[in-house]
Amino acid sequence: MHAYRTHTCGQLRKENVDAEVRLSGWVHSKRDHGNLLFIDLRDHYGITQVVVDVSSDVFKVLEGLRPESVITVTGKVIARTAETVNPKLPTGEIEVRAAAAEVQSSADVLPLQIAGDQEFGEDLRLRYRFLDLRRDKVHQNIMLRAKVITSLRNRMTSQGFTEFQTPILTASSPEGARDFLVPSRLNPGRFYALPQAPQQFKQLLMVAGFDRYFQIAPCFRDEDSRADRSPGEFYQLDFEMSFVTQEDVFAAIEPVLHGLFVEFANGKEVSPMPFPRIPYDESMLKYGSDKPDLRNPLIIVDVTEHFRDGGFGLFAKQVAAGSVVRAIPAPGAAGRPRGWYDKLNEWARENGAGGLGYIQFAEGGEAKGPIAKNLEGDRVAAIKAELGLKDGDAVFFACDKALKAAKFAGLVRTRVCNELDLGEKNIFKFCWTVDFPMYEENEDTGAIEFSHNPFSMPQGGMEALETMNPLDIKAFQYDIICNGIELSSGAIRNHRPDIMYKAFDIAGYPAEAVEEKFGGMLNAFKFGAPPHGGAAPGIDRMVMLLADEPNIREVIVFPMNGKAEDLMMNAPSTVTEKQLKELHIRLDLPKPKPTVAKSEG
Amino acid sequence: MHAYRTHTCGQLRKENVDAEVRLSGWVHSKRDHGNLLFIDLRDHYGITQVVVDVSSDVFKVLEGLRPESVITVTGKVIARTAETVNPKLPTGEIEVRAAAAEVQSSADVLPLQIAGDQEFGEDLRLRYRFLDLRRDKVHQNIMLRAKVITSLRNRMTSQGFTEFQTPILTASSPEGARDFLVPSRLNPGRFYALPQAPQQFKQLLMVAGFDRYFQIAPCFRDEDSRADRSPGEFYQLDFEMSFVTQEDVFAAIEPVLHGLFVEFANGKEVSPMPFPRIPYDESMLKYGSDKPDLRNPLIIVDVTEHFRDGGFGLFAKQVAAGSVVRAIPAPGAAGRPRGWYDKLNEWARENGAGGLGYIQFAEGGEAKGPIAKNLEGDRVAAIKAELGLKDGDAVFFACDKALKAAKFAGLVRTRVCNELDLGEKNIFKFCWTVDFPMYEENEDTGAIEFSHNPFSMPQGGMEALETMNPLDIKAFQYDIICNGIELSSGAIRNHRPDIMYKAFDIAGYPAEAVEEKFGGMLNAFKFGAPPHGGAAPGIDRMVMLLADEPNIREVIVFPMNGKAEDLMMNAPSTVTEKQLKELHIRLDLPKPKPTVAKSEG
Repeated sequence: MHAYRTHTCGQLRKENVDAEVRLSGWVHSKRDHGNLLFIDLRDHYGITQVVVDVSSDVFKVLEGLRPESVITVTGKVIARTAETVNPKLPTGEIEVRAAAAEVQSSADVLPLQIAGDQEFGEDLRLRYRFLDLRRDKVHQNIMLRAKVITSLRNRMTSQGFTEFQTPILTASSPEGARDFLVPSRLNPGRFYALPQAPQQFKQLLMVAGFDRYFQIAPCFRDEDSRADRSPGEFYQLDFEMSFVTQEDVFAAIEPVLHGLFVEFANGKEVSPMPFPRIPYDESMLKYGSDKPDLRNPLIIVDVTEHFRDGGFGLFAKQVAAGSVVRAIPAPGAAGRPRGWYDKLNEWARENGAGGLGYIQFAEGGEAKGPIAKNLEGDRVAAIKAELGLKDGDAVFFACDKALKAAKFAGLVRTRVCNELDLGEKNIFKFCWTVDFPMYEENEDTGAIEFSHNPFSMPQGGMEALETMNPLDIKAFQYDIICNGIELSSGAIRNHRPDIMYKAFDIAGYPAEAVEEKFGGMLNAFKFGAPPHGGAAPGIDRMVMLLADEPNIREVIVFPMNGKAEDLMMNAPSTVTEKQLKELHIRLDLPKPKPTVAKSEG
Repeated sequence: MHAYRTHTCGQLRKENVDAEVRLSGWVHSKRDHGNLLFIDLRDHYGITQVVVDVSSDVFKVLEGLRPESVITVTGKVIARTAETVNPKLPTGEIEVRAAAAEVQSSADVLPLQIAGDQEFGEDLRLRYRFLDLRRDKVHQNIMLRAKVITSLRNRMTSQGFTEFQTPILTASSPEGARDFLVPSRLNPGRFYALPQAPQQFKQLLMVAGFDRYFQIAPCFRDEDSRADRSPGEFYQLDFEMSFVTQEDVFAAIEPVLHGLFVEFANGKEVSPMPFPRIPYDESMLKYGSDKPDLRNPLIIVDVTEHFRDGGFGLFAKQVAAGSVVRAIPAPGAAGRPRGWYDKLNEWARENGAGGLGYIQFAEGGEAKGPIAKNLEGDRVAAIKAELGLKDGDAVFFACDKALKAAKFAGLVRTRVCNELDLGEKNIFKFCWTVDFPMYEENEDTGAIEFSHNPFSMPQGGMEALETMNPLDIKAFQYDIICNGIELSSGAIRNHRPDIMYKAFDIAGYPAEAVEEKFGGMLNAFKFGAPPHGGAAPGIDRMVMLLADEPNIREVIVFPMNGKAEDLMMNAPSTVTEKQLKELHIRLDLPKPKPTVAKSEG
């Protein structure tokens, strides 16, 4: 018989009755029933009930043990009686009658309980993460993450992608966030940077002719912590393809994401392929965001013309000055009390709007509220018709300069949906946002600037750059969105040095500046570069969606806390003078604040 | 028709004749045959011959292009005539007659050639790695590496292992090599370390109950470069299992390695499972190494007793003083000229031995050489018989204290095998070295020290530690060897705090020292730890073996050079004062050597 186990704790069934077995695991719980001691023995695979006769020698071995001690039990599999069968456990039809037991590791008093649903503080959980990870929910989350990544790898491989490991000790990249730096011992005064993303490497892999690359890529940004962002490192499904159009990229990755979400949706629906492609301008108009949550059924409508020169003077004046009016439907909200509207109005002011105008279409046909009092009846009726509203519905208005009105209408759309509980449940709704503008106007200076990624290929290529108003030029740049959460940006890259020089020239960068900053890529593109593009969906975000966990620390096996500390490993930590010396650096610590006594000295 | 390609450059066959196709790729080569221009168009998948009529408009587009420019060609697939078929190319039965062509990217003059087998210096290759990677051999090596890793992942997963990503920003580990350090912005004066290996994390995963972990793990050691070791980062197949004996570990990983090598052996043989288990003592005796290359058929034999009190005074005296004599057979070497033996003798002196004694067993039965002259005939005959030598063979001797004699005999064994070309070719021979000693005696101080890994479980557990001579205690520690190359160490870990305290006590560490240095793991083991063990075969080494490349830089996609620089990305590089300030460090550069003039000041 094996020294530790013949079966796992999740394996035994009725068919095994009468077998002599050996199990090893953790003492999940102990219940003393007079002449019998019941132990739930737990391992990675499940829980099996072990029964010990208190008059036996085995009892002496086990009686003093604390929960979470590790034991090995040998004995016979017994069928449970009908009334003691536990239908919640896959092993619930049997139990093991212990004939021998051995303690592999006896546990001290635990700082946090494994069994049960008690909540513990984050610091305690992270300091004892090796215990926290034994708790069922966390254990399952981490297993889900592993399965998601394995599934992604298999799906990418079967789509013809190849995984390469790009360097982790590398150079600072122009991604924009703060780098983690690593002093070089062999090159005094010089530093490696940890990659914010393998962006340049994946493009160089295309230049090197590898055609379809992917990587479950560790990425590093020295940013402050947020619920959806881990301080330090995170993982993305980084991929890139050569000789592709934007639609080829979508066609390659859609089945991967769709298949993944169907596989792990756990009963939720997944929007069918192809995912909707929503142009940026349309998305800003209809959803007030470039990350539309399509579970929200509300559609924003531009009603500017209905207010132009109309009886509602406040809006009419603003429209005359160049503002727009966006209408957000609120189906069934007409009957809500005045206080509800007042609360929303207050919320609007807190969010920087002048207020939140509305019309209530009461049952019976009357249009109510301050706007309806002043706006001409036919205009009110026209708005009602255009938004497809019925008696009993309401509508809110956002009036401002186009971009501000759009964004605020987006906030209202989300808020109204939540207030009225209109959002679809139990579904993952994907879409692509496409046709992002290449440039935007700086509101303060009026200068033309890149609006998103300067390295995307402009739609229309060189001809567009040479002939069009820059603000009208779109880029082959896209986002993939799920339930309003951006999983990734992506783009068809600009692989042509001539077009890159021109694109930067329009944004005010002379050729020398481009060469100085992005010389490496430019240089590579001069020796034969294929058209290429890709994206990099965030792994952590996908797992958070699938696990339905709003905090990223629930889906990472050994996360840091909000102060970027690993409390379990005691990282970061101080190092020796010798280490610093070898790395050619010294500490330069913030000065302690002078005390009052000293400030006189 | 797709904008870039209907087929890849490796796809077209005779069945495609007459099809209108579009291909994109790099201009691998151009040959001008008077009225026809032949272009070998290359992509990741292969090469297709494109034919251009010099009188066509297409010719004007393509004629001035340099090799490695990227083009898209549209045209009809034509069968080649019998005499122009190229059997070396999978596409060699057809060619594409270009009707249209577009230049996607025109190449400058290349710093290194892609086509052909010309050699280039390492610096040039690494600076233009994106071009170097287009060369067939390097491209294939990198693809092999990717396939090896995919295969390893699939094999581990199907053995029930789960992959987890352990942190890369972590704490200094007690592995012994030098850490790469990362200054923490949020925690002034404190540093992360990049993991030398996820050793502690994988053990904590076992403590957390995950049962079977693996990871294609990036590891970081700030060591100087070697041919088989990359400066900076490397990858290992890190794995760990709970509730296992040493044989369980072997049974889990042997099929993975065996299957992998069979899959990619490319015609070479792979030693069958189970791989031989060779106890450390036996390995040192028979192969003079704990990393035996079993392709070498020579077996070392201890012949000490044949020299004790014998006629060969030099050895007799040393044996009397405690030395041993090891014999290394040299089959068929008796007829080698005197100069051959002299050369080996000189080589032995260069390697610190007093010389290399030998006996030649000439055809006809005479034993020759200085030793045979002095050693009694029956002793010579006994040595001949014990080593199974025949007339025409020779034997070499190493006489020294046991460990030195063993190691030197190992060198001789390798040298003789190479000299006589006795090694098996075209085979991968695996073995396990097992039963490493737990402790060794410091030659200078006589102190008892850990001989390998202090965290391995001693065989016999606490009882062995309490009752045995420490130098006789073996550990559950093992190496996996392929063709004399150590792929990995591994061990059944010591998961018991009480045994750990005792084991360290024997090596002279008081409990407080253990707690201070290894408190994290000790603490974790106090809350219920399963028996566990594992190993971590080096990925780079496996790929080097399979690709038959002696330099690790041939199997890494973007390697650093020997000075730990990435010449392509210009890493490491200088950083700004602002960045240093944010990280609370200053440079502390080596002082430039003072000039003579200044040394007076």
